[in-house]
Amino acid sequence: MSSNAPPADSYPSQSSHVTALDLPVPPRESLPPDLQKYFRICEEKIGFLPNVLAAYAFDEKKLRTFIGFYNELMLEDSPLSKLEREMIAVVVSSANRCYYCQVAHGQAVRELSGDPALGELLIMNYRAAVLSPRQRAMLDFAHKMTVAPDAIVAEDRDALRQAGFDDRSIWDIAAVAAFFNLSNRMATAVDMMPNPAYHAKNR
Amino acid sequence: MSSNAPPADSYPSQSSHVTALDLPVPPRESLPPDLQKYFRICEEKIGFLPNVLAAYAFDEKKLRTFIGFYNELMLEDSPLSKLEREMIAVVVSSANRCYYCQVAHGQAVRELSGDPALGELLIMNYRAAVLSPRQRAMLDFAHKMTVAPDAIVAEDRDALRQAGFDDRSIWDIAAVAAFFNLSNRMATAVDMMPNPAYHAKNR
Amino acid sequence: MSSNAPPADSYPSQSSHVTALDLPVPPRESLPPDLQKYFRICEEKIGFLPNVLAAYAFDEKKLRTFIGFYNELMLEDSPLSKLEREMIAVVVSSANRCYYCQVAHGQAVRELSGDPALGELLIMNYRAAVLSPRQRAMLDFAHKMTVAPDAIVAEDRDALRQAGFDDRSIWDIAAVAAFFNLSNRMATAVDMMPNPAYHAKNR
Amino acid sequence: MSSNAPPADSYPSQSSHVTALDLPVPPRESLPPDLQKYFRICEEKIGFLPNVLAAYAFDEKKLRTFIGFYNELMLEDSPLSKLEREMIAVVVSSANRCYYCQVAHGQAVRELSGDPALGELLIMNYRAAVLSPRQRAMLDFAHKMTVAPDAIVAEDRDALRQAGFDDRSIWDIAAVAAFFNLSNRMATAVDMMPNPAYHAKNR
Amino acid sequence: MSSNAPPADSYPSQSSHVTALDLPVPPRESLPPDLQKYFRICEEKIGFLPNVLAAYAFDEKKLRTFIGFYNELMLEDSPLSKLEREMIAVVVSSANRCYYCQVAHGQAVRELSGDPALGELLIMNYRAAVLSPRQRAMLDFAHKMTVAPDAIVAEDRDALRQAGFDDRSIWDIAAVAAFFNLSNRMATAVDMMPNPAYHAKNR
Amino acid sequence: MSSNAPPADSYPSQSSHVTALDLPVPPRESLPPDLQKYFRICEEKIGFLPNVLAAYAFDEKKLRTFIGFYNELMLEDSPLSKLEREMIAVVVSSANRCYYCQVAHGQAVRELSGDPALGELLIMNYRAAVLSPRQRAMLDFAHKMTVAPDAIVAEDRDALRQAGFDDRSIWDIAAVAAFFNLSNRMATAVDMMPNPAYHAKNR
Repeated sequence: MSSNAPPADSYPSQSSHVTALDLPVPPRESLPPDLQKYFRICEEKIGFLPNVLAAYAFDEKKLRTFIGFYNELMLEDSPLSKLEREMIAVVVSSANRCYYCQVAHGQAVRELSGDPALGELLIMNYRAAVLSPRQRAMLDFAHKMTVAPDAIVAEDRDALRQAGFDDRSIWDIAAVAAFFNLSNRMATAVDMMPNPAYHAKNR
Repeated sequence: MSSNAPPADSYPSQSSHVTALDLPVPPRESLPPDLQKYFRICEEKIGFLPNVLAAYAFDEKKLRTFIGFYNELMLEDSPLSKLEREMIAVVVSSANRCYYCQVAHGQAVRELSGDPALGELLIMNYRAAVLSPRQRAMLDFAHKMTVAPDAIVAEDRDALRQAGFDDRSIWDIAAVAAFFNLSNRMATAVDMMPNPAYHAKNR
Repeated sequence: MSSNAPPADSYPSQSSHVTALDLPVPPRESLPPDLQKYFRICEEKIGFLPNVLAAYAFDEKKLRTFIGFYNELMLEDSPLSKLEREMIAVVVSSANRCYYCQVAHGQAVRELSGDPALGELLIMNYRAAVLSPRQRAMLDFAHKMTVAPDAIVAEDRDALRQAGFDDRSIWDIAAVAAFFNLSNRMATAVDMMPNPAYHAKNR
Repeated sequence: MSSNAPPADSYPSQSSHVTALDLPVPPRESLPPDLQKYFRICEEKIGFLPNVLAAYAFDEKKLRTFIGFYNELMLEDSPLSKLEREMIAVVVSSANRCYYCQVAHGQAVRELSGDPALGELLIMNYRAAVLSPRQRAMLDFAHKMTVAPDAIVAEDRDALRQAGFDDRSIWDIAAVAAFFNLSNRMATAVDMMPNPAYHAKNR
Repeated sequence: MSSNAPPADSYPSQSSHVTALDLPVPPRESLPPDLQKYFRICEEKIGFLPNVLAAYAFDEKKLRTFIGFYNELMLEDSPLSKLEREMIAVVVSSANRCYYCQVAHGQAVRELSGDPALGELLIMNYRAAVLSPRQRAMLDFAHKMTVAPDAIVAEDRDALRQAGFDDRSIWDIAAVAAFFNLSNRMATAVDMMPNPAYHAKNR
Repeated sequence: MSSNAPPADSYPSQSSHVTALDLPVPPRESLPPDLQKYFRICEEKIGFLPNVLAAYAFDEKKLRTFIGFYNELMLEDSPLSKLEREMIAVVVSSANRCYYCQVAHGQAVRELSGDPALGELLIMNYRAAVLSPRQRAMLDFAHKMTVAPDAIVAEDRDALRQAGFDDRSIWDIAAVAAFFNLSNRMATAVDMMPNPAYHAKNR
């Protein structure tokens, strides 16, 4: 419940920095041509250059290894669909309360699923979502890996197998969940801010 | 980062129930006239009848005491603005991961602040938001009341006083934070689903 | 084990305030007649005016909505007995370590059950109590709602049904557990002190 | 708040076993004369034989080492008063939610302090008690040792020194807190029940 | 993976104190003859005098009760083998992250098992070890007693019985796990340092 | 303390698998020449091929992106020394209780520092280590990123600056800590076992 009200102005504007570290984003034209081209393609597909790429751009090698790792994981062939990988990304990012990743990958879930409510559910509490047993098992494993990694035992892998995943798929579930435990912490540690344009997309 | 893709259909539709309990919402015309009128006013102001009111409608007395308690707290005069009370509601609901309350009160923060990003920030991680020292102190107190109530001591109240709150305001911060610790748990316990119309509002 | 010893005086006297906030309890005769009468009835039934009522008395509206909410929940007809509702109150208050509520509702359990040890058990560790399967299920649900509300799922509601509760009863278990998550936090946030007379009753 | 009501009988009787293990308490006359005498002295001083002694009596060596360790710690000369040692015992036992130790040592605090409310406060939430800075520092250290032993650092020992404790006293604070982390777990692991006579003493 | 590198010197030397408290270890010849003899036997069997004995030596009574309690538990007859008791010691000490006890009892597991990897596994994460169902049950019980003592219930004792332990054995599992919850906290509270000679033994 | 004893054989042999998934390590000669050469170099420098490389070898692309990411982070130029990066690796891996990474990087700390005790300390409880203020700040940040990433705020970055780190160094501290939050979870999720040869090195 809420009442109508004129917009208030009693709080500060939100930050527009890329990160809180003094590691300035280099001018686009100073990057090698292939990275300039990669950035242009991102902008065309997404509508803007994701801040995470701007954040890594202070160091060309780090940018390249990040892009390589990320794209292999999220965009290459996998027994998991892209939506499933994004669902894992959101559940992990929610457990770690990473602002950047919840915004960016919540949008991806809305877009790939065509269902705005699903993105909200996975951010707010994936246990409240209606999921297939396969997806529930996948997200339960990713969630446990995130909040209690030391307690993962053989029974947890067996639960995935019983939900229909083969060992090749289990590797990818683990790899995606593990990766967002990296990127969540990197984004939070440097206070990375998501592009504001994410918020209104696919609502 | 996300790639364009056609909407997928590989997951179940989300639930459209009001709650998971078999306590049917009575027909509107069976309610006493004053409650029928109250429901109509809600619909006019908000655009729909919030499901929480439908959920309590199975028992007239419970509905009346809930409305009474809620309205006194969130809509009556208070040293806290309505936006501040909604900010507390969202931070508490996020800490408790209540789907219903994050959706409904996240929308209220977007509407009252005129800033879609603020609603997302308070849901995803209020510590990533740019806040005034007064608001930070207020939300830190509400958050600690939620996750470690047994550890609240005199120093916590003093921190609010140093941020400019008088004791009458401290009562209201405590009362709003305490109330959402009730309503979050009630909503989660019965699997209350928010009205889908909340999602797209004020984006 | 303890040895006999004369009373020591090496620690400070305990607080006798109603709350730690500077919101003075108004003189009784300044209250409206119906509230004066209500307070007198409380004193007659309980032997003293519970401090929680004194605490809310600084604001007549807040006092009325609190009394309304509390009495509907704890004293009106319900599929749960008054003792069961008080048992939930104590288990929730113990999990949140609220001094006020453990004292006041621990006394209520002693009185309603006629068993002093039961009150102590529910305060100290309800898992050490001998309980019927129905009561165990009820208290396990209330405890989980308190310490891990985000983890409540359909299986938890089903466990209550298997223990013999219908959905109307489940609502009341949830409502009582949710309410004490409010009142525990309100009492702790303002350092509300219970009336000393509770301690010796029904031992 | 509670209403008058006749004692209910809708819950099971509480357990009267000494422990849940099948390790029967030997007949008193089968014990060596010095232990028989020790038990008689305990009964004279306390009014009954504490169940913890009955529990250990299945094995004479274990009984003797337990008595030796306990008495050296709690009854011998120490820079800490007996009340202070019992206050530590109760705060540790409350953090671990040990039913036996909270009952037995809560009674000891009531007896040694002459203040029934102090015993309740330390069981329910020691942070709500009015304490001298020295006692607060002592109990904060004991509490942290109990719930986060891995996080104890030099600054914690220094806080005790600044509160007036010398290193000999710090040893005893640590030793008492450590001991109840043993006895709490032993009592809980075997479901040791306290003598019912503790409940009504010193109220 | 690691690369070869010359030893660095960019960090401080580790502490060589026995404890961080100013409670000096008395000269050996000032101890009573029986304790002098006991220390010599320890040195002969272990190769050095364990620092824990030096730490307690400031007070003869405390030293005697500690030795008595420890030896009864770890060296006397028990249905548990010495290796099993040391395995419990390491798992408990790892959960509490006690440096002294992980070093000393990790060495004992290496020595008694003849398997250096087993010592490392129990220190680093016992859930990654290959164990018999009996040992798994034993260590799960000891671990739960350590991290969630308030949640131990009859089902936990039954799980030990189903794994083949009789009640006399359950007492000893509980007693060893409880004891290291004492000694871990004592060692951490006073910053007790293990003898450096432990590190290289039985690798 | 431990007594001499003959090696026992009462527990199962530890696992010798690379991972628990059925994703067989391909024959070395089936790899592309540059990867065969890379593996040979690893064996020459380390003495064996680390199992993590064998684990990723089922998929050439995944192996290459992992090697690229790892080597850029741990072996390339950085304001942090290799030892400092390995210290972060061990503290993070200890917090997550990853068996593989504690073994492999504990060995690296022993080798790079020339101090066997330092490796043990960082595995068992880094708070017990004697560290420079700079190293303490670095490890405190890495530890908090691991166990409470949602609570990282500007004050945490400022603490690193006050300890002498510039923002370029803060990026690398964050990047190393974030990476091991990935690799710990990957290793635990698939039950990756470290090469037994790590155990005895640099003791």
